Amino acid sequence: MDYKQSGVDIDAGNEVVRRIKDLARGTFTAGVLSEIGAFGGLFSLDVSRTRSPVLVSSADGVGTKLRVAFMSDRHDTVGVDLVNHCVNDILVQGAEPLFFLDYLATGRLAPDVAVQVVAGLAAACRANGCALIGGETAEMPGFYEAGEYDLAGFIVGLVDRDRVIDGRAITPGDRLIGLPSSGLHTNGYSLARRILFDDLALRVDTYLAEVGSFLGEELLRPHRTYLPSVRPLLGERPGLVKGMAHITGGGITDNLPRALPEGTAARVDRSRWKPLAIFEYLQNRGEVPDEDMFRTFNMGIGMILVVGAGDAERVLARLAESGEPGAVVIGEVVPGHRVVQYV
Amino acid sequence: MDYKQSGVDIDAGNEVVRRIKDLARGTFTAGVLSEIGAFGGLFSLDVSRTRSPVLVSSADGVGTKLRVAFMSDRHDTVGVDLVNHCVNDILVQGAEPLFFLDYLATGRLAPDVAVQVVAGLAAACRANGCALIGGETAEMPGFYEAGEYDLAGFIVGLVDRDRVIDGRAITPGDRLIGLPSSGLHTNGYSLARRILFDDLALRVDTYLAEVGSFLGEELLRPHRTYLPSVRPLLGERPGLVKGMAHITGGGITDNLPRALPEGTAARVDRSRWKPLAIFEYLQNRGEVPDEDMFRTFNMGIGMILVVGAGDAERVLARLAESGEPGAVVIGEVVPGHRVVQYV
Repeated sequence: MDYKQSGVDIDAGNEVVRRIKDLARGTFTAGVLSEIGAFGGLFSLDVSRTRSPVLVSSADGVGTKLRVAFMSDRHDTVGVDLVNHCVNDILVQGAEPLFFLDYLATGRLAPDVAVQVVAGLAAACRANGCALIGGETAEMPGFYEAGEYDLAGFIVGLVDRDRVIDGRAITPGDRLIGLPSSGLHTNGYSLARRILFDDLALRVDTYLAEVGSFLGEELLRPHRTYLPSVRPLLGERPGLVKGMAHITGGGITDNLPRALPEGTAARVDRSRWKPLAIFEYLQNRGEVPDEDMFRTFNMGIGMILVVGAGDAERVLARLAESGEPGAVVIGEVVPGHRVVQYV
Repeated sequence: MDYKQSGVDIDAGNEVVRRIKDLARGTFTAGVLSEIGAFGGLFSLDVSRTRSPVLVSSADGVGTKLRVAFMSDRHDTVGVDLVNHCVNDILVQGAEPLFFLDYLATGRLAPDVAVQVVAGLAAACRANGCALIGGETAEMPGFYEAGEYDLAGFIVGLVDRDRVIDGRAITPGDRLIGLPSSGLHTNGYSLARRILFDDLALRVDTYLAEVGSFLGEELLRPHRTYLPSVRPLLGERPGLVKGMAHITGGGITDNLPRALPEGTAARVDRSRWKPLAIFEYLQNRGEVPDEDMFRTFNMGIGMILVVGAGDAERVLARLAESGEPGAVVIGEVVPGHRVVQYV
């Protein structure tokens, strides 16, 4: 008996690694010292422009959005979701990305699928100026159904210590600026799938007139990166952006408080923006209470910035210049205990 | 319908996060600036002792060794495997670990299992002086069988640029020093499980007289970390250790060449060490050809160092002092094309 008979094909793995190397090489930035395939990825840190370097890191998965990719047999968008999710997670603390590594696990490696997944990762890494420096492709017979996989990612970014955004300076009266999401991003898919596919028996190729798109297309639309919009603000005076919250699993309800210091709360005025059509559709057809909608989905707001009341107009203007015309004040900070009050 | 009905229990997740935070806090080193639960993990890099800092990173999984943990209902060792595997992967390039993040994916979160897994991660992080700075616990209904999970990890370490170990100076005549493994480490489990459980119908509580232990215990014995043994050598003159190979999937056959520059090959003398009893057992009972054994399992050698012929004795003595008395010269570098010749 050899290893291939036992379900692990090292040669197929090597072929995927070769194609992945080419994709990854296209993302390399000046700091990358190593080739993919070395035991570790090497990244030379330029500390000449950083007085006190702080590394900011995050690990994430794509969650059950993957199942929509399986249903659609489309595998080049989930990598974009993952990279952008990770980029946003470190952006909220003021960091710009340096490098990214992925973990792709399958039952049996389908080379074309693996390459599609990595092509998505690589495209998003390039767009964010982040090097895809390594990763692990695991073939685990019996762990995953045929045609299925799991995908996780890890990012490391850099911020100067005196520019770390930590929310400490947030006080009542500060404004909450919401940046629009492009759809569900990567959260709420277990509930959405149950409503759409289990209860309503829709298919990925169903056209939803109320939403204006095919269901698969709507559900696979990638998680946005907010780096291009927010980056110009990070170069302004330290403290201009006092806090940020990436609206992921748990929605505004659970994520916005993570950016708030003790003694403060958030009052969010729901009349200030209109949730995307897909959220109205999910709420109406699924008969989901408001409270659950706001604790499950981003409801059309993918990122929230906390700025001083006197800075709000200028920040909105800068955001409009950097390609974020839909940014809007959605509420303010009030005294309280790290909760969100909706009005 | 709310989110809990759809299979995702946010409150159970929050409870796990709370217990994980306590475990992670016990691993924190001086560089850690953030609490677990922030969007990103913050690590302050002390560059005062590093002229030109190079970050070395690696992503890994545990592979199908996880299934032995499921069969044994024992979940506190796989985290040790994962951390030590990652530590070794960056050690081969001369890096000492700074921080680690994990990705734990389940169908439905069993809080006790998740906490056991993270307890293993935390124990190994502490032992390696590495901070468990963050991670993602994903509940993905329908992706994993009840009681099963996948586990991946991501490590970042630091090395000064003029101390990066890259194999470039390796020349014919250099010696190969093998450091003993503790068992299968994390590789070859698909083949091992097929032989032991499918063909021989053994159980994790079967006692193997030839091996001297219960099968589950033998198969779950954690992957060793070579950091304590090798660290003293990293502080000696740059270039003392010319190259290193971590013997993982692909065995000595596929991993040793990764450390070799073009124009060189490795001659490995199999008479220099005796493979652990579990490998003899697997080979005899599974009727596995030699070639496949050496391309699948570590065969009792978990790490190989390449040193100049004149340094070999001194390196062996230093290794013995640092707790590695079983280190042995297993061969030498010869002219060739990045392959391993066994004699």
